[in-house]
Amino acid sequence: MTEELIVNRRIVLNSRPVGAPTADNFRLEESTVPKIPSGKILLRSLYLSLDPYMRGRMSDAPSYAPPVALGETMVGGTVSRVVASEHPDYRVGDLVLGYSGWQDYEITDGTGLTSLDAGMPRPSLALGILGMPGFTAYMGLLDIGRPEAGETVVVAAASGAVGSVVGQIAKLKGCRAVGIAGGPEKCSFVVDELGFDSCIDHHSDDFPQQLAAACPRGIDVYFESVGGAVFNAVLPLLNVRARIPLCGLIAHYNDTELPAGPDHLPLLTKTLLTKRIKMQGFIIFDDYGSRFDEFFKQMNTWFNEGKIKYREDIVDGFENAPQAFIGLLEGRNFGKMVVRVAEE
Amino acid sequence: MTEELIVNRRIVLNSRPVGAPTADNFRLEESTVPKIPSGKILLRSLYLSLDPYMRGRMSDAPSYAPPVALGETMVGGTVSRVVASEHPDYRVGDLVLGYSGWQDYEITDGTGLTSLDAGMPRPSLALGILGMPGFTAYMGLLDIGRPEAGETVVVAAASGAVGSVVGQIAKLKGCRAVGIAGGPEKCSFVVDELGFDSCIDHHSDDFPQQLAAACPRGIDVYFESVGGAVFNAVLPLLNVRARIPLCGLIAHYNDTELPAGPDHLPLLTKTLLTKRIKMQGFIIFDDYGSRFDEFFKQMNTWFNEGKIKYREDIVDGFENAPQAFIGLLEGRNFGKMVVRVAEE
Repeated sequence: MTEELIVNRRIVLNSRPVGAPTADNFRLEESTVPKIPSGKILLRSLYLSLDPYMRGRMSDAPSYAPPVALGETMVGGTVSRVVASEHPDYRVGDLVLGYSGWQDYEITDGTGLTSLDAGMPRPSLALGILGMPGFTAYMGLLDIGRPEAGETVVVAAASGAVGSVVGQIAKLKGCRAVGIAGGPEKCSFVVDELGFDSCIDHHSDDFPQQLAAACPRGIDVYFESVGGAVFNAVLPLLNVRARIPLCGLIAHYNDTELPAGPDHLPLLTKTLLTKRIKMQGFIIFDDYGSRFDEFFKQMNTWFNEGKIKYREDIVDGFENAPQAFIGLLEGRNFGKMVVRVAEE
Repeated sequence: MTEELIVNRRIVLNSRPVGAPTADNFRLEESTVPKIPSGKILLRSLYLSLDPYMRGRMSDAPSYAPPVALGETMVGGTVSRVVASEHPDYRVGDLVLGYSGWQDYEITDGTGLTSLDAGMPRPSLALGILGMPGFTAYMGLLDIGRPEAGETVVVAAASGAVGSVVGQIAKLKGCRAVGIAGGPEKCSFVVDELGFDSCIDHHSDDFPQQLAAACPRGIDVYFESVGGAVFNAVLPLLNVRARIPLCGLIAHYNDTELPAGPDHLPLLTKTLLTKRIKMQGFIIFDDYGSRFDEFFKQMNTWFNEGKIKYREDIVDGFENAPQAFIGLLEGRNFGKMVVRVAEE
């Protein structure tokens, strides 16, 4: 490693959001990177994944993972290059998948890193279709949803990182795939490019009616990542023995209190009862970590064969991460949101 | 068969209830029993089971089973004696479990009947611990709840036909069993007679606090048959990877509209998500019919060994069925509600 000073930019949690995050919840800090100690490596972030779950980490309400502390670097998955190594297992130039968070550099002993092919053509895919979102789609649909040929699978956020994969796997399994997305451009993409049978714009005034028309035989699997009005439209269409894998609730992440009434909880539980429905939340690596290799092999095959398509929304410039994240929560992205932190 | 006229009393649905059922929703009708045709038998009802699900059949809202039509006999499980037979497979004196509904007599070709030991000491058990309610407890807890030794199992309606069995099976599996029941007498019975570790009176002002104190390590399985305020108290206590078998929602059966707000639906789905909880509705014979024999053998063994205790609330007199049913929905019964229609 040279003696040249390296500056690390990192984005820290400046304050906890009340409702939707704003720019002043984030703060950019700079510091120089110290000498790498023996047994450690220096990672240069190339791509930073932005995902809805990060909203939960900004709050200190009890959740499945501890919150980011005030002043701490925002968490997040990263694809990085090893740029200095004092560790026998890593060489400069190695490409790794890690969890450096919102920063340019990280010094680490390698714990939790996954090595990637150093010449991988599109390493950002490890943050999407070949990583956490793709894995979420794969296990949630196949292990909890268990779709059978001929069944109808409805997917919220159908143009996004998870939903786009769910619907395409459903098609590979012989199902009718119906997407829900925000706006005509996304809906066209979902049908024309991804091959869903239909996609409904949830901004339409008659969204519930359109959804019902697109599901003439009801809904057997609803892959939930949204909640809110989308879920309310899905509920009456669910079939007997439907399955609801639940991986996110983006419509509620900015809620500051329970929504106004009436109370729909008894309507949900009554539907679960009378139609014998299974609804199950899951957190992909906690619940299915041991099956990542199975997923990766299958998804890599499908992707390379062109059977599953995938769209990224790449934002250039680390300093744009907060605005990109704020937009993600509002559905302004189109495809998997990734920040390009540095040129490969 | 004699030529003597036999009068059949039956209770029919006179009008659909709005909210809680009242006496005038029912009507008693009498008719003479015709001559039994060849291939048929005449059943004399001995015991009629009263169960909360019947409230659903009184409404014409879409549900998992068609409603009782106006003027039609109320449905229900029965233990009956064959009193006349023109069918080669049945003899006078045979004891059967069937679904004659709220009436003294039924003429049937035997479809759907289960033969019972004609000398069975307590045939009404076939409507309870050895029948639908016991089967519901057994499969819901063991197949959906999947309790492990050391876990905490919370049971709503713990002195009732289903809940009392759930908690006792949980104890046999090495779990901590915490019941919820209405009133100190039921709670004492649940702990002192049934052997639950604790039982909380949901009428107490500090019911949520008492429930929390009784579950110092949270709740791993919540066996739901109630909903309402009981469920609201359970929700924050659920552990990561909790399971919620859902077989009933008695607190909501008389609802005429959605309860006032705030809307707790997002709180439920958020809890399911962040704690990766499975909630699953089931209708016992539709979902587990093929496993009845397994259940019956095991439960019969447990019961005969004294490992599972069981309380019946027997009402004498067919004409009292409507009031008994109305009381059941208000929790006025104490144990499995059965109407003794005739002496054995």
